[in-house]
Amino acid sequence: METTDSLIEANTRFYRAFELFDIEEMNELWDKELAVTCIHPGWPLIQGRSEILQSWINIFNNTMVMQFTITESSIKIEGEWGWIVCTESLRSVVNGKVNEGRVEATNIFRRVKNQWYLVHHHGSPIIN
Amino acid sequence: METTDSLIEANTRFYRAFELFDIEEMNELWDKELAVTCIHPGWPLIQGRSEILQSWINIFNNTMVMQFTITESSIKIEGEWGWIVCTESLRSVVNGKVNEGRVEATNIFRRVKNQWYLVHHHGSPIIN
Repeated sequence: METTDSLIEANTRFYRAFELFDIEEMNELWDKELAVTCIHPGWPLIQGRSEILQSWINIFNNTMVMQFTITESSIKIEGEWGWIVCTESLRSVVNGKVNEGRVEATNIFRRVKNQWYLVHHHGSPIIN
Repeated sequence: METTDSLIEANTRFYRAFELFDIEEMNELWDKELAVTCIHPGWPLIQGRSEILQSWINIFNNTMVMQFTITESSIKIEGEWGWIVCTESLRSVVNGKVNEGRVEATNIFRRVKNQWYLVHHHGSPIIN
């Protein structure tokens, strides 16, 4: 198992882009060559880069505040692939309504020229 | 990208064990060496082999019927790791109540001696 620092950094960068509603950074973070997939909490699967970016635009347009605390539970790297299982403790304001809660996430990255790119994001709400 | 048939077969075997409430097969399917993680739909993260198996026992004890139709959206293999993103169309009877719905899943496997073992299962309900 090689060092996981760069993978954790990429994961942190992803949540930072979300907090800042930074669509350019989000665009930069997703893999540009492979088929990418995204499951937002409670949503059906989204396939395709442009469809995923549009979903982020929609989320950013409807969210006033988003703050994350991320706790990584599992981090693995194999070749040019890496994945992180983490818990997002979040506070958000969506359509004027304050939400506090936790989301479980699986984030899968691929490394290209020493840079990690998201290939798959899966977030799920904790309901029980 | 090598053939993905064996990975799909392992994934199918996982859902078959779920349908049959086969805890011995479920025990066999999960990786015995690595730290394993599991997120059932709406649940918080479960870490550890025995904790995960106990969760399956609890689910099996409370479920009368479980039927899946699985649609794979993304399948990738890198070295001894493989992962599948799939949609579970399911019909279940839990505590006497019939449920029909869809769950998005990310399943990550590791191969040991030509056999795929689950290292991470993440299912999330489609709410919207």
